Amino acid sequence: MDFTLLHYPLCPASRAVRLALAEWGFPVELREVKPWALDKSFLNINPGAYLPVLFVNEAVLAGAHPIAEFLAEALEARKGGSHFHASKVWPAGLLKRAEARRVADWFLRKFDQEVTQVLLDEKVYKPASGIRVSPDLQSIRASRTALAYHLSYVGFLADQRRTVGGDEFSFADLAVAAQLSVMDYLSEVAWERYPETKDWYARMKSRPSFRPLLAERIAAFSPPAHYADLDF
Amino acid sequence: MDFTLLHYPLCPASRAVRLALAEWGFPVELREVKPWALDKSFLNINPGAYLPVLFVNEAVLAGAHPIAEFLAEALEARKGGSHFHASKVWPAGLLKRAEARRVADWFLRKFDQEVTQVLLDEKVYKPASGIRVSPDLQSIRASRTALAYHLSYVGFLADQRRTVGGDEFSFADLAVAAQLSVMDYLSEVAWERYPETKDWYARMKSRPSFRPLLAERIAAFSPPAHYADLDF
Repeated sequence: MDFTLLHYPLCPASRAVRLALAEWGFPVELREVKPWALDKSFLNINPGAYLPVLFVNEAVLAGAHPIAEFLAEALEARKGGSHFHASKVWPAGLLKRAEARRVADWFLRKFDQEVTQVLLDEKVYKPASGIRVSPDLQSIRASRTALAYHLSYVGFLADQRRTVGGDEFSFADLAVAAQLSVMDYLSEVAWERYPETKDWYARMKSRPSFRPLLAERIAAFSPPAHYADLDF
Repeated sequence: MDFTLLHYPLCPASRAVRLALAEWGFPVELREVKPWALDKSFLNINPGAYLPVLFVNEAVLAGAHPIAEFLAEALEARKGGSHFHASKVWPAGLLKRAEARRVADWFLRKFDQEVTQVLLDEKVYKPASGIRVSPDLQSIRASRTALAYHLSYVGFLADQRRTVGGDEFSFADLAVAAQLSVMDYLSEVAWERYPETKDWYARMKSRPSFRPLLAERIAAFSPPAHYADLDF
């Protein structure tokens, strides 16, 4: 199977999928798309107007959740082949998978809507699109309040379990880490207030799948000094 | 397994799960929760503060997507048991499943955020919560514009395939129909403008799983006359 991913470097759902592709050994060709300037040719591919889009040969897959489930099934299908991976996209056990999916769904849907979409839009997409509008301070404040709550929750989970999605590493960890990495790029995370969250995220950052993401920079916006530092 | 669902009658994600439970023969006890008045006891169960929540014995499952995937796996696990179902939660075939999941994800995430959340909030949740705020007319207008686009897209899909999620009936159809049924309850759908969408939705409404939903009424808000009519 031939994989091509339409993505944007700071799109958290794109990041979650890139991490998953790297973790489970699916080589991919990346093509950057600007979320604030989706043209007709993109809408012909994904009329839903969102990233990421994964081409699998000629087929179009869209959205982090459908893509993650596809990778889980593709990995299962190639079992016994030449690839070996210690971890799986989802843990073993019906209820453990449901719990890992709960965490992934929370961060890909609820966290994304409440926090990342707003802050990315205000700090990166609006300025990049060239439309001159003053920042929506009320939305920014609400997003930061929500972010604090979510960061505490990640710490709570990390404290209770071996990792955030449960006792086994899974796509849930990638979905959460992808979101937090974008917030970190935008200097939105006061790590010292969330020691358990920070410990867990430091482990995530050290995974080889994270390396390409941490090395990338977008033109108009620089991350804080600690962003790519594994011992931040 | 013992199933209890925390739901709200007009919550589209709750509806999608209720339809799925009925379609695939999982008996469930329903408990109503008011989304505009989630209390501490609910947040202890689902700190993400969203519906639906499914108790499976003592385990807590939250969110329509994780629950749908759980039901798919539970159905698979009880294969060869005493139940027989012609349809499955997802169609057969890796890419067909990815396509059905794309449609479900679009409507549970993007459509929900752009359309249903706004209109439910403005028309039902805000008035029910007793907070006196004037309606956000700009948001309502934007949601209605988005709704028109999505309704056309459903018609486009229904015209191209045997059903909206692909050629096989699947959870995708339930996710879309759940959203549209809430919009229809709120008199937001000008069906005559979307004949293909209407034909498909008429078929969905005729399924036995839909009957309990169509019979329900919430106190402060009545649906249009055609809402429960199968030949609308």
